[in-house]
Amino acid sequence: MNKFMRAAIAEAQLGLEEGGIPIGAVLVHNGNIIGRGHNRRVQLGSPILHGEMDALANSGRQPAKIYRESVLYTTLSPCMMCTGAILFFGIPKVVIGENTNFMGEEELLRSSGVKIEIADSEECKKLMRDFIAARPELWNEDIAEPCKTGN
Amino acid sequence: MNKFMRAAIAEAQLGLEEGGIPIGAVLVHNGNIIGRGHNRRVQLGSPILHGEMDALANSGRQPAKIYRESVLYTTLSPCMMCTGAILFFGIPKVVIGENTNFMGEEELLRSSGVKIEIADSEECKKLMRDFIAARPELWNEDIAEPCKTGN
Repeated sequence: MNKFMRAAIAEAQLGLEEGGIPIGAVLVHNGNIIGRGHNRRVQLGSPILHGEMDALANSGRQPAKIYRESVLYTTLSPCMMCTGAILFFGIPKVVIGENTNFMGEEELLRSSGVKIEIADSEECKKLMRDFIAARPELWNEDIAEPCKTGN
Repeated sequence: MNKFMRAAIAEAQLGLEEGGIPIGAVLVHNGNIIGRGHNRRVQLGSPILHGEMDALANSGRQPAKIYRESVLYTTLSPCMMCTGAILFFGIPKVVIGENTNFMGEEELLRSSGVKIEIADSEECKKLMRDFIAARPELWNEDIAEPCKTGN
């Protein structure tokens, strides 16, 4: 497996160990990871810190041209918020671990000119499948979907 | 002026006093402010903390139904990142202080069914006009646009 997707999975696993939602991401520029992150909804009580957003936050203040030369690796297909961020920063390529457990806004990304690669990783799929089975209410909260428990 | 837009402007002014970019927002549910925020790129070194995102972050973990009954007030037209967040959380209405200094993704919001109101506030316009004139390089960095200084 690509070492950057491995780093994104390591972030997802770190999130799981912290009691959080196992989604991770890394932002890569010229072969170097400039930001790592994972979903920290539970850990920090923040609804905006999806894995991709956390990686962007942790990349700090970068000049516009850096984003435009970067690749975002994420363990799960990006939701509309993260898609908006990818388009806003002008990130030209996104590598996605899996889109079986959640299909994000890949069509919007593609139609906006972003190159998408699907790694179709069994490891990514198992992480999310197991998590969703164990914590469906938390998963629904994270994707802002109402669920039967009144979320 | 509407008291919620006034609260968003107060957030923008707080940001300016902190040395930051003067954009503020509040999230309102059933007539109560449940999250206040302002752009904190400079203060926290975070590229994702636009005013709207900071207000969402500060609203904490809310059930999906709360967002779907809320109104977001923001001093400036929402960029693609903040638009993605508005759509992701299903916020049905956005009140925008001004869109003269920056026109965000209002068409995407409207076409996605979000109700938009433009307050066309002179106070909001002056805040941004003065800031952009004083700190053009910081403004370009915030909207992820390359500028002549190499950002």
